[in-house]
Amino acid sequence: MLVVMKSGATRDDIKQVCQAITDLDLTPHPIPGKLRTAIGVTGNVAPVEPTLLSTLPGVADVIRVTKAFKLTGREMKPENTIVQVGEVRFGDPEICVIAGPCSVESHEQTVPSARRLKELGAHMLRGGAFKPRTSPYTFQGLGEEGLKILAEAREQSTLPVVSELMSTEDLDLVEEYIDMIQIGARNMQNYPLLKRVGRSPKPVLLKRGMSATLEEFLLAAEYIMSEGNRNVILCERGVRTFSDFSRFTLDLSIVPELKRISHLPVIVDPSHAAGKHSLVIPLARAAVAAGADGLMVEVHGDPSKARSDGAQALTFDMFAELMEEVRIITPAVRREA
Amino acid sequence: MLVVMKSGATRDDIKQVCQAITDLDLTPHPIPGKLRTAIGVTGNVAPVEPTLLSTLPGVADVIRVTKAFKLTGREMKPENTIVQVGEVRFGDPEICVIAGPCSVESHEQTVPSARRLKELGAHMLRGGAFKPRTSPYTFQGLGEEGLKILAEAREQSTLPVVSELMSTEDLDLVEEYIDMIQIGARNMQNYPLLKRVGRSPKPVLLKRGMSATLEEFLLAAEYIMSEGNRNVILCERGVRTFSDFSRFTLDLSIVPELKRISHLPVIVDPSHAAGKHSLVIPLARAAVAAGADGLMVEVHGDPSKARSDGAQALTFDMFAELMEEVRIITPAVRREA
Amino acid sequence: MLVVMKSGATRDDIKQVCQAITDLDLTPHPIPGKLRTAIGVTGNVAPVEPTLLSTLPGVADVIRVTKAFKLTGREMKPENTIVQVGEVRFGDPEICVIAGPCSVESHEQTVPSARRLKELGAHMLRGGAFKPRTSPYTFQGLGEEGLKILAEAREQSTLPVVSELMSTEDLDLVEEYIDMIQIGARNMQNYPLLKRVGRSPKPVLLKRGMSATLEEFLLAAEYIMSEGNRNVILCERGVRTFSDFSRFTLDLSIVPELKRISHLPVIVDPSHAAGKHSLVIPLARAAVAAGADGLMVEVHGDPSKARSDGAQALTFDMFAELMEEVRIITPAVRREA
Amino acid sequence: MLVVMKSGATRDDIKQVCQAITDLDLTPHPIPGKLRTAIGVTGNVAPVEPTLLSTLPGVADVIRVTKAFKLTGREMKPENTIVQVGEVRFGDPEICVIAGPCSVESHEQTVPSARRLKELGAHMLRGGAFKPRTSPYTFQGLGEEGLKILAEAREQSTLPVVSELMSTEDLDLVEEYIDMIQIGARNMQNYPLLKRVGRSPKPVLLKRGMSATLEEFLLAAEYIMSEGNRNVILCERGVRTFSDFSRFTLDLSIVPELKRISHLPVIVDPSHAAGKHSLVIPLARAAVAAGADGLMVEVHGDPSKARSDGAQALTFDMFAELMEEVRIITPAVRREA
Repeated sequence: MLVVMKSGATRDDIKQVCQAITDLDLTPHPIPGKLRTAIGVTGNVAPVEPTLLSTLPGVADVIRVTKAFKLTGREMKPENTIVQVGEVRFGDPEICVIAGPCSVESHEQTVPSARRLKELGAHMLRGGAFKPRTSPYTFQGLGEEGLKILAEAREQSTLPVVSELMSTEDLDLVEEYIDMIQIGARNMQNYPLLKRVGRSPKPVLLKRGMSATLEEFLLAAEYIMSEGNRNVILCERGVRTFSDFSRFTLDLSIVPELKRISHLPVIVDPSHAAGKHSLVIPLARAAVAAGADGLMVEVHGDPSKARSDGAQALTFDMFAELMEEVRIITPAVRREA
Repeated sequence: MLVVMKSGATRDDIKQVCQAITDLDLTPHPIPGKLRTAIGVTGNVAPVEPTLLSTLPGVADVIRVTKAFKLTGREMKPENTIVQVGEVRFGDPEICVIAGPCSVESHEQTVPSARRLKELGAHMLRGGAFKPRTSPYTFQGLGEEGLKILAEAREQSTLPVVSELMSTEDLDLVEEYIDMIQIGARNMQNYPLLKRVGRSPKPVLLKRGMSATLEEFLLAAEYIMSEGNRNVILCERGVRTFSDFSRFTLDLSIVPELKRISHLPVIVDPSHAAGKHSLVIPLARAAVAAGADGLMVEVHGDPSKARSDGAQALTFDMFAELMEEVRIITPAVRREA
Repeated sequence: MLVVMKSGATRDDIKQVCQAITDLDLTPHPIPGKLRTAIGVTGNVAPVEPTLLSTLPGVADVIRVTKAFKLTGREMKPENTIVQVGEVRFGDPEICVIAGPCSVESHEQTVPSARRLKELGAHMLRGGAFKPRTSPYTFQGLGEEGLKILAEAREQSTLPVVSELMSTEDLDLVEEYIDMIQIGARNMQNYPLLKRVGRSPKPVLLKRGMSATLEEFLLAAEYIMSEGNRNVILCERGVRTFSDFSRFTLDLSIVPELKRISHLPVIVDPSHAAGKHSLVIPLARAAVAAGADGLMVEVHGDPSKARSDGAQALTFDMFAELMEEVRIITPAVRREA
Repeated sequence: MLVVMKSGATRDDIKQVCQAITDLDLTPHPIPGKLRTAIGVTGNVAPVEPTLLSTLPGVADVIRVTKAFKLTGREMKPENTIVQVGEVRFGDPEICVIAGPCSVESHEQTVPSARRLKELGAHMLRGGAFKPRTSPYTFQGLGEEGLKILAEAREQSTLPVVSELMSTEDLDLVEEYIDMIQIGARNMQNYPLLKRVGRSPKPVLLKRGMSATLEEFLLAAEYIMSEGNRNVILCERGVRTFSDFSRFTLDLSIVPELKRISHLPVIVDPSHAAGKHSLVIPLARAAVAAGADGLMVEVHGDPSKARSDGAQALTFDMFAELMEEVRIITPAVRREA
């Protein structure tokens, strides 16, 4: 931490700040400059509340110098984490592709789809049973019935399944039926929920909040990991910007930056960002080229009949094309991964 | 809803879209233009999933024309809603001011503060017992002990209290001790939580999510109201933008726009948006001038000792000055309110 | 400037960075911490290109500590600057109000309007002769004819006039007819234009770019001032965000922050941010309450006939109401200004 | 265009709006709905100023239905435009790569670099002679001397060169020395400059403004094309968002969307968006995978000595690696291009 003094700060002001730093069991390092003095602070383990210094007389600014990602950061664990779900290994050289409908709507829609996706090369099945919908007047998901359909689809397709959890109260249910718990973008800072899945034996797929900074995203993962669950996969799914032709703006730069800072696997969901299927395949290819460990895409047997988000769903043919293109791109990225 | 056809759409494409609209029990109204045809859709009560039309051949775009705010909108209830908490009436001509520390830290910090705030003209006391903190390694609030201190402060000051609820599991506890439930910005789209407080007898203070559109904000209030609880106060607290000198960008334009569309009271929290106390008073004055029904500000007896967010806390002297300025401004705004 | 070393940086890395700092005629101040070393840098007058240090081995980050606003900042000139245009004094306790149509459309629309605005208390007249329109196919302004109409309106109303300059080539013309040169948001970083008006004897109204940070805004003013023209007024007019109910999001927090950092007058244009007249008056009041030195609002005798931006124009009656409300609010803000 | 009436609009209101539409030589198509009436408008060629209708009594909203991209859109010219610069063909199946230093600093830095880049497979040389710098106190480019160095580099390397034009006054000079004119992000809405290069015989590389919507971007290209110059290349270079780990957020979704709507070539500059070299290669790969027709990347023989933006420059080795990866990815995207 660095305390920057105003150009008009007095010697006494500087002395008082140094004393306050010492009182916090930290060490002050004054650096007198031409125009003003700065004071380096060392010795802190946990983050120091900057207010304890910023409100003192003569202080212009308090700047945090380092960010502590204790459990998610590479400083403490340099090698990549592999998160294993059944046979699927996120973080390995192979790109892992999760596919399936936005919502589980029926047995007929889901189970044959799962088998088809398996044939086309998907590694996991996705499907929403509890749906976070913006309006209370739209389809909210099938709940437990949806989970049962997913379990049946897994049995018939051998694909492990991931589904979203919205409430601590449903955790037991979700754990019973599915293989990986998804925390959606709207719940990325739902801390009681993060803490609770941090005590689950199931791996967690954590989606980036729609306006979360990289730091907030990793700290959300810290909430899960600090409760004991080390199997966290990070998922970029688009952030909110002024741009109005896509639903969200997919921020692919976060992929290499997360991989640099953190040892956790990083995947990308292009479907929710795009909001229309014509953008999904180009963005999916781009995600792989940017270095993502996997993809999560929405696929629907008949998008025009989907009860939610049909506009962004791929057909099976489109999905087959995507898988082929992923296979071409992979060697450009993952030569030594 | 309006379906816009591509300029190259065929007659059959148009016919098929009209048929699909009829199949949904709605009425199509084709409008042939010079370059292309548009098709108006009438008859819908609930929102129609646009995909059901957007994926048909020849369709360029599906545009929603009206937004349905059934319970929050003025179309159904033109007169202002007054939300009453004890003697305090949000939505009345008087500006209601909620003040208090960011976190409840101790009996000594909270109870005398409450009495002082009452003397200075505050209408309600705020204080966090459950704190949504970005990092798991920072102070998380006193929990039930904090709620007890707030109840004691209320008894000694006669100020009703509001405090944040983060989890459905804590609702019984929070209801027991406090007068109004706050839903924080990070939980604005935590739908199970919204539904649950929708069944509480306590009024709810709903904060705007940090990247919520006006529509998403009102639909979050719809979640609460559709469960039966009609006592909802909306609170603007700043949105996330590129701008980096304040913590969030306070979006005061939403105040008159919400008042125009909705009958619910609207208040503003300038403290979290500002992130530094030098901005809080100007923004609080501006909020009143923009037409807000009330304010929520952080006040701390000794900001330099606060365990969270001290940089943005007002001292008692600053708060007294603010109250005086609010009294000057009010007649410019609320002449006929 | 502060150089933060990686936790694994070697002694040699640190030595090399200190040497590079010395080579730049600056002084290094190493601060050894528990996990890593930071190196303070002092002695620089102009900003140092951070790359010169950030690409050295072992360097994790280079942090700029202070921002130099040589001519715009209060550090060098603590007292407020008054910018005088005719009798109007921006920066004085009185709120200065600039009003008029978006575009100058005709003599009949402009000249009588100017007289009416003068009666209602406006201090200056605005009107666009050169219009920066998003589409090349919409009305682009009357050019020189518009400037002549403005000059005529000034003569008949005694109001000084301000109008936008888009090109260095039109400067002589604009200087001939008008009293203050406006640089629009789209040209805030048009550096040749800024430099050129920096050599004009006329005061300059500089609008904030639609996604300009506070620093970029003040540095644009530095461009003008460093050429010799010290009469610069800063104008907030809304920034681009995800929020979709107003055209731009008016960022009123920048008003007190600019006043704190800079000695220049700060005014607010609520009309372009709002995009609809129902928001203009509340935002104009809020701007004054936030501490602005003035306002710029669009007023049109018959908004439904305006050739540009009619939706946001106030009628004369609305403008009269606004002036009255401004008079009520002013004493809450400018008691000692 | 669609006019949406308020639910309380009277018959007379509706009649008056229809009359106003007829008065504009357009045709009204009333669509009576359950709650309210909408009125379709057909017959317009140029965009109609919405205010002419939105301020009438009973009108709730005026919605533009179609966007007119007369010269940039595929509706009028379905086949791809090829922009040819020397032998280089932007829009062809081959990915065109523009590379070079941020600023032209000296003959020694530029000319041998150009030869090396040619060997490594670059198609064009970039280099700034007129630099738009945020601060007036930093290096502003070598001006004409820089252009001469570029011309020399072209001669020795055979690579055509592109350089930024900031002012109409420098156009003759720039046209004399270089092969393609770059309009930078800060000048995307500098309309006099756009019009002027619209009359140049040289192709134009138009960069997206840092907060430009897709519509504003294409309309900026319309400004150039409507003056006669049809050789425009669009360049995505990152947009401004809240995200703080990269300098700008590269919006790769715009690549497939622009290609869908417009026939113009689209390239991507990952260097300015990234702001640090560790992100440049992953983003460059992603751009190609998203369907871009080309790349523009900053390469510097010794990034630590660069006078501007060295942190984001690639070394020659990194550039060679990138070219190899581009070759692997291309077949996944451009099979039938």
